Amino acid sequence: MSNPPIVSLVQYEDASDEVRAVYDDIMAVRQTDWVNNFWKVLAHDPAHLKRTWEALKDVMGPGALDPLTKELIYIAVSATNGCEYCTYSHTASARAKGMTDAMLMEVLSVAGKANETNRLANALRPPVDIQFQPQD
Amino acid sequence: MSNPPIVSLVQYEDASDEVRAVYDDIMAVRQTDWVNNFWKVLAHDPAHLKRTWEALKDVMGPGALDPLTKELIYIAVSATNGCEYCTYSHTASARAKGMTDAMLMEVLSVAGKANETNRLANALRPPVDIQFQPQD
Amino acid sequence: MSNPPIVSLVQYEDASDEVRAVYDDIMAVRQTDWVNNFWKVLAHDPAHLKRTWEALKDVMGPGALDPLTKELIYIAVSATNGCEYCTYSHTASARAKGMTDAMLMEVLSVAGKANETNRLANALRPPVDIQFQPQD
Amino acid sequence: MSNPPIVSLVQYEDASDEVRAVYDDIMAVRQTDWVNNFWKVLAHDPAHLKRTWEALKDVMGPGALDPLTKELIYIAVSATNGCEYCTYSHTASARAKGMTDAMLMEVLSVAGKANETNRLANALRPPVDIQFQPQD
Amino acid sequence: MSNPPIVSLVQYEDASDEVRAVYDDIMAVRQTDWVNNFWKVLAHDPAHLKRTWEALKDVMGPGALDPLTKELIYIAVSATNGCEYCTYSHTASARAKGMTDAMLMEVLSVAGKANETNRLANALRPPVDIQFQPQD
Amino acid sequence: MSNPPIVSLVQYEDASDEVRAVYDDIMAVRQTDWVNNFWKVLAHDPAHLKRTWEALKDVMGPGALDPLTKELIYIAVSATNGCEYCTYSHTASARAKGMTDAMLMEVLSVAGKANETNRLANALRPPVDIQFQPQD
Repeated sequence: MSNPPIVSLVQYEDASDEVRAVYDDIMAVRQTDWVNNFWKVLAHDPAHLKRTWEALKDVMGPGALDPLTKELIYIAVSATNGCEYCTYSHTASARAKGMTDAMLMEVLSVAGKANETNRLANALRPPVDIQFQPQD
Repeated sequence: MSNPPIVSLVQYEDASDEVRAVYDDIMAVRQTDWVNNFWKVLAHDPAHLKRTWEALKDVMGPGALDPLTKELIYIAVSATNGCEYCTYSHTASARAKGMTDAMLMEVLSVAGKANETNRLANALRPPVDIQFQPQD
Repeated sequence: MSNPPIVSLVQYEDASDEVRAVYDDIMAVRQTDWVNNFWKVLAHDPAHLKRTWEALKDVMGPGALDPLTKELIYIAVSATNGCEYCTYSHTASARAKGMTDAMLMEVLSVAGKANETNRLANALRPPVDIQFQPQD
Repeated sequence: MSNPPIVSLVQYEDASDEVRAVYDDIMAVRQTDWVNNFWKVLAHDPAHLKRTWEALKDVMGPGALDPLTKELIYIAVSATNGCEYCTYSHTASARAKGMTDAMLMEVLSVAGKANETNRLANALRPPVDIQFQPQD
Repeated sequence: MSNPPIVSLVQYEDASDEVRAVYDDIMAVRQTDWVNNFWKVLAHDPAHLKRTWEALKDVMGPGALDPLTKELIYIAVSATNGCEYCTYSHTASARAKGMTDAMLMEVLSVAGKANETNRLANALRPPVDIQFQPQD
Repeated sequence: MSNPPIVSLVQYEDASDEVRAVYDDIMAVRQTDWVNNFWKVLAHDPAHLKRTWEALKDVMGPGALDPLTKELIYIAVSATNGCEYCTYSHTASARAKGMTDAMLMEVLSVAGKANETNRLANALRPPVDIQFQPQD
């Protein structure tokens, strides 16, 4: 059996108005009728909950990159950091936005290679090539 | 002044035939007339050099994801791991494939948020929602 | 010589009104007449600049914890992640808020031990004691 | 069901005199009648057990920083590294020393922001400002 | 209960010929009649499966270092990164190659110290001594 | 030009008796007439200096593993964490103990692969095989 969360889950029916407003916005933006557990633990600090949700909504929406590409980046970083919850939640989000298994496997091939070559470079310390240095 | 590399740079003119064959392929695939320093330190182990280059060539080419998306993922992972060399080399590669500054800044917004929320989830340990669990 | 930054520094005189407003607020809150380079690279994405500054201003201000304690936590995390810039900037901030060398050395003793014992636990996988599990 | 520990738990009744002496000191210092599982796996190397406990006792005691502040730093580092056991054990220790939920949430806001901005700095490589450089 | 894997396990009886060929080689090299779950999830990308297995077979075989030393290094890195699956699989592999509990505990003492002193150096930024710099 | 260290280097001639005793022991054990910069920054906390040196002396000496193997593990972890100073110092130590370039390159092949497969396992979450689980 998994260990219980470090702080209790703040359920909608027990939440303050401030927290409910965030939960309502999460469900409206995502067009779902439920809120996932990440937000229910963050809700112990309503200002933190609101700030994190507002920022994530801005960052993960369409811009110079499309939302699916952003989910793929999220998966790669979460794998690098070994965050179990985030791996499940962002894989599910990416699938909902159209990620196929083939795309997932390619994300992980790239993330795996980056994790490997990052360490080769960190250990061998090649100088940064002049051709790679940004020009004014 | 930077510290020197941990092992010397194996220059083309001093390289074995086995190493030169890899250098030649790197330049042919990339359509350049130079080889970057990462490969010149790896060349101390020719089999490792060849294996890493062959794998990277496969992984970073077109597939279910396009090569630019793959470079963006590489940047996000390299930032997460703090690899200085990789940050410079993959930012340069991504720019050569069409990455704008706006795209770079969005990659980093996403990578930054992932690094932040990964730690919130790791510290608060919410259970993985049943809705996020893969179904057979 | 250090490598140049990945994107240019946006100086006050070249900044848009939106960026200048953030720079002005940074200087007002900190009671200084200069803005540090971290913000000058982030300024390539004015919305990201503003969001990050607003969040940091909120998070690092007084609350259940005092601002100096928060800087000490920032130093410990930055050391764990190996961020050179952050190590310099947050050590300077902490000193400005009263951190002595003795306090710095104790932060690092704790951060060092945490980094050590985190890996012992990750490698040996002791079950979480029932006494450590949160109760409803 | 969780996976079993990598090495067995060395229980008090099965422990050598050398290990028992450490267990006794742990219980005396903490004024408890039990020893947590982290020490019971480390006990497979009695010298390592003793060295780690002695160092931790010194480091986590009062000094230029108070013991509660030290536990908060431990939580921030453990969240950064994703150590599940350490998250549970040090959250419990911090609570026993007076940490409120509001304090925990603020620690995590700071640790989250540090993890985010560390990567922004690592990716954009702003030069360290002259004002942040230590003076002789 | 553990969360299910992110992608299903590709069992031998359901595998393509390409995947079966890799599974057969894994069992032949290891002289076992089963394939562990890591390969069964990777099998969703047969080229990735084959590339990873071929590389690992080369890297982990005898060379300038013996296979047991290589498993010890794998354990140290897996502990540093907090990979649960890898900790179990490589501890088991190392034991099969002769690792005793005393050896395991020493690997972890070293890995623990490295994780600690890495952060002390990253936080205090001593210049690299001239004596440690590689000479041409 | 590199940034200066965060705290000044405590030189032998300016050191307290307590610090000098550690410096003397470092030189005696290593049979050298100089002390490297890592210890000179740690010396701002003499108890921390002494504790770290004593522990490192114990951990890195001969035991179930030989000192060279321990240096190889240190290099692998330092590469994983991206510690520049530690990479230089422990590569130099390992070379002094007999590490060849071929051995260094193999350590990094293994460390690279571990960093890659750790992320594949963390992202795909295969269940730990029953055969890998320790038996009582």
